[in-house]
Amino acid sequence: MAQISHLALDIGGSLVKLAYFSQISDDESSESNAQVCNGDKGCTVLEGKLQFAKFETAKIHDCIDFIQSKQLRLTGCRHDGASANEQCVIKATGGGAYKFADLFKEKLGVFLSKEDEMNSLVAGANFLLKSVPDEAFTYMDSQKEFVQIDQDDLYPYLLVNIGSGVSMIKVDGPGKFERVSGTNVGGGTFWGLGRLLTKCKSFDELLELSHQGNNRVIDMLVGDIYGGTDYKKIGLSSTAIASSFGKAISDNKELEDYNPEDISRSLLRMISNNIGQISYLNALRFGLKRIFFAGFFLRGHAYTMDTIAVAVHFWSKGEAKAMFLRHEGFLGALGAFMSYEKHGFDDLMVHQLVQQSPICADSELNDNPSIDCNLYLS
Amino acid sequence: MAQISHLALDIGGSLVKLAYFSQISDDESSESNAQVCNGDKGCTVLEGKLQFAKFETAKIHDCIDFIQSKQLRLTGCRHDGASANEQCVIKATGGGAYKFADLFKEKLGVFLSKEDEMNSLVAGANFLLKSVPDEAFTYMDSQKEFVQIDQDDLYPYLLVNIGSGVSMIKVDGPGKFERVSGTNVGGGTFWGLGRLLTKCKSFDELLELSHQGNNRVIDMLVGDIYGGTDYKKIGLSSTAIASSFGKAISDNKELEDYNPEDISRSLLRMISNNIGQISYLNALRFGLKRIFFAGFFLRGHAYTMDTIAVAVHFWSKGEAKAMFLRHEGFLGALGAFMSYEKHGFDDLMVHQLVQQSPICADSELNDNPSIDCNLYLS
Repeated sequence: MAQISHLALDIGGSLVKLAYFSQISDDESSESNAQVCNGDKGCTVLEGKLQFAKFETAKIHDCIDFIQSKQLRLTGCRHDGASANEQCVIKATGGGAYKFADLFKEKLGVFLSKEDEMNSLVAGANFLLKSVPDEAFTYMDSQKEFVQIDQDDLYPYLLVNIGSGVSMIKVDGPGKFERVSGTNVGGGTFWGLGRLLTKCKSFDELLELSHQGNNRVIDMLVGDIYGGTDYKKIGLSSTAIASSFGKAISDNKELEDYNPEDISRSLLRMISNNIGQISYLNALRFGLKRIFFAGFFLRGHAYTMDTIAVAVHFWSKGEAKAMFLRHEGFLGALGAFMSYEKHGFDDLMVHQLVQQSPICADSELNDNPSIDCNLYLS
Repeated sequence: MAQISHLALDIGGSLVKLAYFSQISDDESSESNAQVCNGDKGCTVLEGKLQFAKFETAKIHDCIDFIQSKQLRLTGCRHDGASANEQCVIKATGGGAYKFADLFKEKLGVFLSKEDEMNSLVAGANFLLKSVPDEAFTYMDSQKEFVQIDQDDLYPYLLVNIGSGVSMIKVDGPGKFERVSGTNVGGGTFWGLGRLLTKCKSFDELLELSHQGNNRVIDMLVGDIYGGTDYKKIGLSSTAIASSFGKAISDNKELEDYNPEDISRSLLRMISNNIGQISYLNALRFGLKRIFFAGFFLRGHAYTMDTIAVAVHFWSKGEAKAMFLRHEGFLGALGAFMSYEKHGFDDLMVHQLVQQSPICADSELNDNPSIDCNLYLS
């Protein structure tokens, strides 16, 4: 039996994302007990689930400790047939697969096998859209609606992955894609600027603050310029934002005079709207009607999704549609997980993962639930 | 003789821009002395120049004092034929033409005649591109190059006016245009966020700071994520910005630990690049090869223009060209000035302004030089 691992990593600029398979049995040492024979393929079936975890890239040692504590790497290495000389391999994508390769070798004795980042994102998205029910949904006026994806009508679509930066990928089919655009105004910008402006201690705290905020305190609205009236001729209402943070040009107020809540709200709206607009313009270029937004910037956050959806709706005059994914943050990690098979690891047929239990539609959106599935080992 | 005025205003969210005609004679009371008969039209010709001034909108009273001190409004009112009941009219555009109408009536006794903002921008741009030599130039690798505009090959073009917010206008001919897009990330965002982050006291101070700054201190580069290497497969070099302000997510540094110079540089680059990208995507939509950037955000600032030009070049793979205008900040005011004629003020034929002295190409770019011209009064 060749080396396998039941873990894959996506190491980005801000976050490390993990996707790993764990068997239903709680007793991690009883792997052999849980194996079931699958007659027609002659392979082994493991029942279990794909689980997810994330860590800050700055705290990569926490991630390494986690892997060690879970004995995840052992899953991939301690097979009877593996000689002591054989390398333990973990599939990894994102820039950190390069940056931290030596660290993983040193601390865990594993070799990070690098998977292309865009490739992994697309493979992850296609897997979710194909195999996991109630994965994709629209969000508008605080209403989410799950969408059943017709596989014959899925391609082409635009995949927008909002991590520290943003990648925009036109996906034409399984493995057929092109990174057509991107922007450096992304999740890292929200969190970086937000930290400097509010002294928040975490991304989630900053996001939480935005709930109570009012962007009109800091943003310059059309009405502020036009003395309270609309600019009707070009369809700009008095409440439209003319200039994000434009009211802060006033001499009368310093940073300390603004509420962190209002700052967070303005920042979130500025960045979400900007990403929505650039995404739409790229979808328009290629005649793509559906835009799937993913990445850990979103975190199932209602206002963020609402702003993006409204931006796409506004700029496209209703022609294009923003869609979101429940496992938004783990596309890259999932794609890396899928890649074991592709590279000669024929014994791990993750493309045959079977989603078993329907995910309840009204559960929390940002819980990144595990996915029940079977894993086929030849 | 109907009321005329030799002054027009563009009152934006951050700045008030003035375009006014002054005669060559220093003696402002000798208007009649400077009149010259123009035989074939039976009209009066005033020799002089179009001059420009700007004030912060927050200090609108300085602007009113300036108008009063220059007796500019008197030019428009104290004609022998004008009865005391007739209204003094000044053409004005921008949102402030609505917001400050009462203030101008009260302080100066003048009526602000409102001109549409987009209309004025386009009229101003077309005038500059048609009548003023050495007005348009390209900027690349710190090299500016003046471009002679062939009138038969001018239209269509994209006009991007970067004020507090940004308007993007497709111009198809004189008076033929459509506002096709815009963004709320503009000059007000640079100055508003910049003030909060650096405590700078003026926009120009903030711009000046950026000269000494290094954006790599705060921006997360591709190399920061990839451990110093490029992401070659998609053509991203290690020095490309992956995430603006993305390094500020680090726990180790607070706002005070960053140099204002570096912050200013990152902010300027983020916003300039963003505007360049959205502009290019809109130019692409409509097959426009030339994009003229204007508005007071630019201020003839080398790094800003360079960033925008590089963004347009990068995203369009060299297909589209960023161009700039010497009188970038005064398009709206100039357009409002031009409009006197359009609305029955036939006595002020500003469309026949004649540019007389060539503007020296190597003089300062941000001087907004006056334009020598003749004014025809019927």
